[in-house]
Amino acid sequence: MTAAETIDAFHRGRFHIVQPRGRGHRAGMDAMLLAALVADEGPIRVADLGAGAGAAGMAVASRLERAEVVLFERSAEMAEFARKSLALPENAAFAARVSTAEADVTLTGKLRNAAGLVDDSFHHVIMNPPFNDAGDRRTPDALKAEAHAMTGDLFESWIRTAGAIMIPGGQLSLIARPQSIGDIIDACGRRFGGVEITPVHPREGENAVRILVTAIKGSKARLSLRAPLVMHDEGTHRFSSFVDDLNNGRASYRRR
Amino acid sequence: MTAAETIDAFHRGRFHIVQPRGRGHRAGMDAMLLAALVADEGPIRVADLGAGAGAAGMAVASRLERAEVVLFERSAEMAEFARKSLALPENAAFAARVSTAEADVTLTGKLRNAAGLVDDSFHHVIMNPPFNDAGDRRTPDALKAEAHAMTGDLFESWIRTAGAIMIPGGQLSLIARPQSIGDIIDACGRRFGGVEITPVHPREGENAVRILVTAIKGSKARLSLRAPLVMHDEGTHRFSSFVDDLNNGRASYRRR
Repeated sequence: MTAAETIDAFHRGRFHIVQPRGRGHRAGMDAMLLAALVADEGPIRVADLGAGAGAAGMAVASRLERAEVVLFERSAEMAEFARKSLALPENAAFAARVSTAEADVTLTGKLRNAAGLVDDSFHHVIMNPPFNDAGDRRTPDALKAEAHAMTGDLFESWIRTAGAIMIPGGQLSLIARPQSIGDIIDACGRRFGGVEITPVHPREGENAVRILVTAIKGSKARLSLRAPLVMHDEGTHRFSSFVDDLNNGRASYRRR
Repeated sequence: MTAAETIDAFHRGRFHIVQPRGRGHRAGMDAMLLAALVADEGPIRVADLGAGAGAAGMAVASRLERAEVVLFERSAEMAEFARKSLALPENAAFAARVSTAEADVTLTGKLRNAAGLVDDSFHHVIMNPPFNDAGDRRTPDALKAEAHAMTGDLFESWIRTAGAIMIPGGQLSLIARPQSIGDIIDACGRRFGGVEITPVHPREGENAVRILVTAIKGSKARLSLRAPLVMHDEGTHRFSSFVDDLNNGRASYRRR
């Protein structure tokens, strides 16, 4: 570890992530909730699109012993952090099942396949797409800006890639902000069905701050809006026990 | 009242609706929740699109003493039921502030204006659009089939009309099924902003069965996903007290 890095523990110390100190998008709760959406004990191949330092993908590999995970990340610098994490002795239990690939997930056709985003080759695709709004204050550093540079049609291109690289019947899982719900549903379009949306609220009575979304490639089932997750019990700063279990890799959040 | 009709009490008897007996769409909880979305004590003009027998619009007029309501309904037979309701002595308190208009809300341009759906003339537009799925069992009677014949682009045409007849800053309110959330957001598009969505769940932990949606004409504010309404307290068949208040016109459901 250099002065420019931190090593952060997740899942109560069951795995660790090397991240740039004070720059870039820092992995946290969002990545852990996203990882909890993969609830599949079998031998599965999982693609983490826009993986950053790899927290979500490694959380899946750490919790699910038969999962093989590929971390796709456009930024060479962030991919290098992921490789440093995988080299940590603390992550030896799953490191052999996780690989990294520098690739732009918005690629299409032959270029996409050549970048390792191979058609019909994953059982699960997870994504925590970057977001940014024209109205937001500009992020001061370039690495963070790149991670947060969500534009209108990014969901379309990311979910298009997810649909291409997934086997029929495979599961897309993502975490996003509520304001993106329309873009996400539109991008799922005819590619995915059985969309399940779970709002995540900080506290009872407050607006949702995130949505958890899963969908099945080729399904014709209707969208459903599930009971919300409420992060904090009333009057406390602690996570509710189920959210704490999701955050710490002790539980998965299964589709209905 | 004839043998083919019923008179049903709403708001604990504060107003009554004449409806066809055993045929057509019957007004109930959905109409009352929809009406609760109008929370405006001032002198307002309200359009109820696809009003049916007029329950939602009359609920608004009954609760808000300064509201003038126009019930727009394509079916001459249903509009006639609305007129019968307005003639009931039980509804005398607000009947003078409610009128009916036979009009197809999917009309456009001059035809729409000629049908009474006049541009920039309403402060509020409410709608409980009919729904039907190709996969649903076919409804046996024609009147009900007409009320439930929601097709893919019906939200587009209904919300287009809502946008046209509303003043800038006016409020759209609707109730729909969760699976329509994408169509609704798309139809709001650039016409409406500040979309607020409230999922309605029968019980805690169960999927939502309805969404309440409000939006403001011309607003640039982002979509928000509000805390859900849970209809029944755990372990009971009674409505939770807030839902009961909404259903009985004792409370409105205000925008944030």
